[in-house]
Amino acid sequence: MINRKENKKFAVILSGCGHQDGAEIHEATLTLWAIHKNGADYQCFAPDIRQQHVLNHISGKEMKEERNVLIEAARIARGNIHPLSTYQADAFDGLVIPGGLGAAKNLCSYAADGPECTVNEDLVRAIRSTHRAKKPMGALCIAPVILAKVLPHVTLTIGRDEVTAGNLNAMGADHVPSRQGEIVVDEKNKIVSTPCYMLDSRVDQIGKGANNVIQAMLRLC
Amino acid sequence: MINRKENKKFAVILSGCGHQDGAEIHEATLTLWAIHKNGADYQCFAPDIRQQHVLNHISGKEMKEERNVLIEAARIARGNIHPLSTYQADAFDGLVIPGGLGAAKNLCSYAADGPECTVNEDLVRAIRSTHRAKKPMGALCIAPVILAKVLPHVTLTIGRDEVTAGNLNAMGADHVPSRQGEIVVDEKNKIVSTPCYMLDSRVDQIGKGANNVIQAMLRLC
Repeated sequence: MINRKENKKFAVILSGCGHQDGAEIHEATLTLWAIHKNGADYQCFAPDIRQQHVLNHISGKEMKEERNVLIEAARIARGNIHPLSTYQADAFDGLVIPGGLGAAKNLCSYAADGPECTVNEDLVRAIRSTHRAKKPMGALCIAPVILAKVLPHVTLTIGRDEVTAGNLNAMGADHVPSRQGEIVVDEKNKIVSTPCYMLDSRVDQIGKGANNVIQAMLRLC
Repeated sequence: MINRKENKKFAVILSGCGHQDGAEIHEATLTLWAIHKNGADYQCFAPDIRQQHVLNHISGKEMKEERNVLIEAARIARGNIHPLSTYQADAFDGLVIPGGLGAAKNLCSYAADGPECTVNEDLVRAIRSTHRAKKPMGALCIAPVILAKVLPHVTLTIGRDEVTAGNLNAMGADHVPSRQGEIVVDEKNKIVSTPCYMLDSRVDQIGKGANNVIQAMLRLC
């Protein structure tokens, strides 16, 4: 008997390194942990673009410097990361996008523009091609806004924040409220989402949510 | 019945954000995860000093910029971090040091000086006061070299690397070989160590090692 799950490989789309201006580190790390824990493998990707800005994560204030999303995301990926422009849906069994404000600042313009946001072109291509191939996609924390913008009428969760939920509805998605560690599965579109730090959470709750996302994605493969 | 573990709080000493020039992100995150998972709590600390250097984590080359260890470590701590100079052993039940080359570059000079290294003065004070208070200490990956340098005749592991093991012996410590996820416990000195990325490891093996360290530390409290 071959354990089919051991052959599965997911693309993980990172948006920098640090929740205020990049990928949320706990969500990203625990996504990688959950993939390995469930016998699958991963390849990290990030866009090779300038970060929108660099924030001091103690003061929250902008720092006068520039950083590159791909180079900073490589800190989480331990150097094993590819430019998002090279992603091919046929080489993977699905893709997953951890949260952090980088997802709403570097992967799309949601943090500034709300429902009128634009999404990074390479990410639009990655999401549409993966969706066409009927492969599962996962989105953590604020990242579901990207799937709501790119795909028509998907069902997902960002937790219980009413403003964000209203914006998801304005983009044509159905929002389902959820609690720490819970997932919402859109079976038709093969989309799995979980709120993570959109809710006050302990780190082990982030791990539980990431693990639930990956297990549901493996079931949908 | 009060669950005593719910009252335990560990200090986590970070050395930046990224394994080549700071704290190893998976080891740091999974240490925080293991602390929460076992019903304890944490407070992150880092020295308020300049990083030794900044490395591009894709090319491994030095970047012409400066970063501060405390400010970068705040990315892992989600902003909730204190200067290491403010650590008081009586306020915590123990301390744990994740690895990454930051531990050997920013917390001490081991990466450059080997067994002749010097250790950050605030960290020396933190380790000695915690040891005097007979509270447990954990060290992951390369971080055991710091405890070997500061404390007399401790027993610990960095995995199976013979050069590092020889250097530990030269600093007066006893090295015990170990494999992925395993821990070595020095019961007398209440020191727990695990090899993490000193060995080729999957992310879930890092989680297993961190979890074993935290559970042993809780037992030693």
